[in-house]
Amino acid sequence: MNKSTNSDSRFVHKESRYERGIMWREVLILSLASGAAHGGFPYITPTQGQVWPIPREVKTTEKYFIMGPENFNFTIKAHTCDVLELALARYSAIIFSYPGGDKQKKADHENWRNNDISADPLTGLDIVLTKECEKYPYLGMNEEYDIRVSSSNNVGTATLNSTSIWGILRGLETFSQILIPDPKPPTYVVNETIIKDGPRFPHRGLLIDTSRHYLPLLQILYTIDILAMNKMNVLHWHIVDSQSFPYVSEAFPELSGKGAYNQERLYAPEEIGQVIDYGRLNGVRVVPEFDTPGHTQSWGPGQPGFLTPCYSGDKPDGTFGPVDPTNEDNYDFLKEFFKEVAERFPDHYVHLGGDEVSFDCWKSNPQITDFMKKENITGDYGKLEEVYITKLLEIVSNLPTKNGYIIWQEVFDNGVKIAPDTVVQVWKGGWQDEMAKVTEGGFKTLLSSCWYLDYISYGADWRNYYSCDPFDFNGTSTQKELIQGGEACIWGEFVDKTNLIPRTWPRASAVAEKLWSPEELSKDANSAAPRIEEFRCKLVYRGYNVESLGPSFCMGDNI
Amino acid sequence: MNKSTNSDSRFVHKESRYERGIMWREVLILSLASGAAHGGFPYITPTQGQVWPIPREVKTTEKYFIMGPENFNFTIKAHTCDVLELALARYSAIIFSYPGGDKQKKADHENWRNNDISADPLTGLDIVLTKECEKYPYLGMNEEYDIRVSSSNNVGTATLNSTSIWGILRGLETFSQILIPDPKPPTYVVNETIIKDGPRFPHRGLLIDTSRHYLPLLQILYTIDILAMNKMNVLHWHIVDSQSFPYVSEAFPELSGKGAYNQERLYAPEEIGQVIDYGRLNGVRVVPEFDTPGHTQSWGPGQPGFLTPCYSGDKPDGTFGPVDPTNEDNYDFLKEFFKEVAERFPDHYVHLGGDEVSFDCWKSNPQITDFMKKENITGDYGKLEEVYITKLLEIVSNLPTKNGYIIWQEVFDNGVKIAPDTVVQVWKGGWQDEMAKVTEGGFKTLLSSCWYLDYISYGADWRNYYSCDPFDFNGTSTQKELIQGGEACIWGEFVDKTNLIPRTWPRASAVAEKLWSPEELSKDANSAAPRIEEFRCKLVYRGYNVESLGPSFCMGDNI
Repeated sequence: MNKSTNSDSRFVHKESRYERGIMWREVLILSLASGAAHGGFPYITPTQGQVWPIPREVKTTEKYFIMGPENFNFTIKAHTCDVLELALARYSAIIFSYPGGDKQKKADHENWRNNDISADPLTGLDIVLTKECEKYPYLGMNEEYDIRVSSSNNVGTATLNSTSIWGILRGLETFSQILIPDPKPPTYVVNETIIKDGPRFPHRGLLIDTSRHYLPLLQILYTIDILAMNKMNVLHWHIVDSQSFPYVSEAFPELSGKGAYNQERLYAPEEIGQVIDYGRLNGVRVVPEFDTPGHTQSWGPGQPGFLTPCYSGDKPDGTFGPVDPTNEDNYDFLKEFFKEVAERFPDHYVHLGGDEVSFDCWKSNPQITDFMKKENITGDYGKLEEVYITKLLEIVSNLPTKNGYIIWQEVFDNGVKIAPDTVVQVWKGGWQDEMAKVTEGGFKTLLSSCWYLDYISYGADWRNYYSCDPFDFNGTSTQKELIQGGEACIWGEFVDKTNLIPRTWPRASAVAEKLWSPEELSKDANSAAPRIEEFRCKLVYRGYNVESLGPSFCMGDNI
Repeated sequence: MNKSTNSDSRFVHKESRYERGIMWREVLILSLASGAAHGGFPYITPTQGQVWPIPREVKTTEKYFIMGPENFNFTIKAHTCDVLELALARYSAIIFSYPGGDKQKKADHENWRNNDISADPLTGLDIVLTKECEKYPYLGMNEEYDIRVSSSNNVGTATLNSTSIWGILRGLETFSQILIPDPKPPTYVVNETIIKDGPRFPHRGLLIDTSRHYLPLLQILYTIDILAMNKMNVLHWHIVDSQSFPYVSEAFPELSGKGAYNQERLYAPEEIGQVIDYGRLNGVRVVPEFDTPGHTQSWGPGQPGFLTPCYSGDKPDGTFGPVDPTNEDNYDFLKEFFKEVAERFPDHYVHLGGDEVSFDCWKSNPQITDFMKKENITGDYGKLEEVYITKLLEIVSNLPTKNGYIIWQEVFDNGVKIAPDTVVQVWKGGWQDEMAKVTEGGFKTLLSSCWYLDYISYGADWRNYYSCDPFDFNGTSTQKELIQGGEACIWGEFVDKTNLIPRTWPRASAVAEKLWSPEELSKDANSAAPRIEEFRCKLVYRGYNVESLGPSFCMGDNI
């Protein structure tokens, strides 16, 4: 039986006045001239104790338990490690983070108590991790878990089981969400519950961009917190681009020395280490992107000879284009550079970019023309790009760390020879055809085309993100098995520390549910709406400035 | 001579390396494939020491002065009052709020010092207020001022003159903006300068909406701070609407008791008093809007009989429509209600709304039909609306406080008889024709149509707001004299404490300059762009999370 029905019936006494209060809002606001410039968006009543993203299977009964911080404990019953111990410290705070304190609900609560409905106490959660912890999260890691909240001898007992530390992390987040804050803090109630859960797709990511605007370390760590609360597991760090080069290379310090916005906007090795470790503790992979041969203007000042000098007539005009593929020294540089990158970032994958290469500058440059003549590719600049990318991919594949790579779709479109474990990220329009082609070629793929969160628009646009499904193309089941998931992208042209969190969340949460939850449970935005309202408020209670999805308020939010 | 030219030439030594650093960004980013999904927006170098909104007249010379907090004082030379004294306390902190500390600039600064360029010290600002303070700001208050920064006997002296406390406030903001932070904090430099300034329009406002989402008091006070820094002078407080009724009426406590989201989301008399007083101290009028007869659903639960019961067939269906204009008791209620409003809000004007009245419910109600028969207006629901509004306007005009009112354009469009000092707020499309009609009718008017900031879109949309001018319609100079200015509107459906500040600012700053600065100085967004970048950073330095306008960083922002 559906949980919110339970909670409605269970709370019918205590909620009655409150629910009536809501009714006139829902009914009457819907009756406003819709689409009116000064109104027309309904208030949506949040659910209580629902989980976002919605699990594979949730069974609850009418029976419920009462719990509070003073007599609740986590108990580690099997394996443990720093990831688990630090997670329990976090969730000890999180599960009781609801501020409560709404006078209306307090009053109703008293009536409810007077109806002497009784419940058993829930005194703790047993954590059963049946295999040893893995050090770093990775593509395809096991994130499955199950939760049982039931009772024996009138005492509630709860258990969280998983064979993987990553599953335990996901399960702790779920447990924190099924607790229904009681109007009399710090009491909580929870239904008798059985949950079996695991992800639909293994790669569920968010792209952040620290080149158009620098993001302070703290903003990146907050983002990792919220990713984990959404059961997302990849931070795609588009760390450098044409506007600035904040990444500090120890082998080539001039790159950030001359390419950063300034010398206070840098990511030094120790800071990158903190991001990676913070990600690890939250089950979030940190995948860096170093985009070449385009989007590389900021590499120029610190690495002379790396970029192609553009000519007007027979003279260089002082501006520069993409990487100069004819300069052999550049490949030695790239080998050194990526060797350091691969040592610094533990993930198997590095993102190599390869998008949006403009050929104008190459066309203007006489050395390029001569080179192409020698190579017998005169006039075919796509081939010239292929020459460069092919060498780059070889370099990365042959690093001591034997990295795999993710690339933007253009690299595949240009017919570059790519390694079998390559992941192709699809971001352009017409993604259905593209994903059919990529998977037909036998390659793993990620969808981003529908989820460019930097393109803002008026209204509840999360519904658009929610309506896009990676399986929505013509392909065999074998092809669909190659879909690794996708990424929401919050490109940084108009995003910095002042608006990163409210602009990204909870809009990216719609993508999180599409990528984690079973297809049949994540089809209908209308049924998701009351749940995402509840989830948004949970993030607000936890202290994150995640924006609203329409007229609303978070019950008990201590404003 | 233009100031930014001065500062360029003056700072040529110290800036050289930094400027080169910028050059490759500006030139090369412009050379990116424009409109590309992953790039294409240029970095724009902020000006130094420019004023936003740009003053009527600024004259500077190559000569400049050096100043620092340890030896700088404000001196009151004539009249004073709490408004002035508290302003000096604020600006003593603000003028030295630049965090400085950019290593690159520090280094360059040393070079610059070694070029032994010398300058006289500026030791203070004399404040000359030649008339007594007024208690509250009002429509048409004098906001003119002039500033002189010059030297005698090798000591810089600065004077701020105005006949009005409101002019002094505007002048202090201007003075705080012409100081150029020196790379070696806490030193500042300022050119020899003469500024004569005053507003183009008397009404320069921002609408906030506390019904769709409650805004905590602190968010409203921050908004007043930023309004004053933009030389805006009206907070249009759309305090209640259909979604919630947070305004606490002492005569009718059930309105908020039953109509607020909850009893922690209220504006009690003392809080409203704080907003009004905080506005007064910043030269910002607080104009409340109580919108009727539509947008009134939240009035219903607390004031039975106020709203029209909607019928399906011959029975009420439990929903309600606009105010019931046939219920005589409603006019007694409105008289009492607005009497209290007028006592609580000192401004001469109260906004009475009157927008977007849906007739469906009125059409369904048999009492309404009978009433219209008696009135001989059967079928003409616009006339029915006129009956209501006419009585409402009479009630407000005849209050002991003899208030004037602002109304949305529909009231004028419906041909309701309105008082001569009425201000008509134009918000719909086709505003040029509307403003021609309204001013032809001899009425004062405000423009908002171009400035609905709640309608967000991708990119630098401040340029669109900047391209809209209230004089851009066919009318005589007499008609144009009736234009009081305008308001940016940040309706609250998708705006709450999590995103109010970054979403509103600096987008509303484009409107601020259109409404304050001379038409000929506020035409070209490209010349405004480097100035608004500087202004945005000043707001960031002052601690407000105002979002970015494109790829950028704030020099020395202590992230």
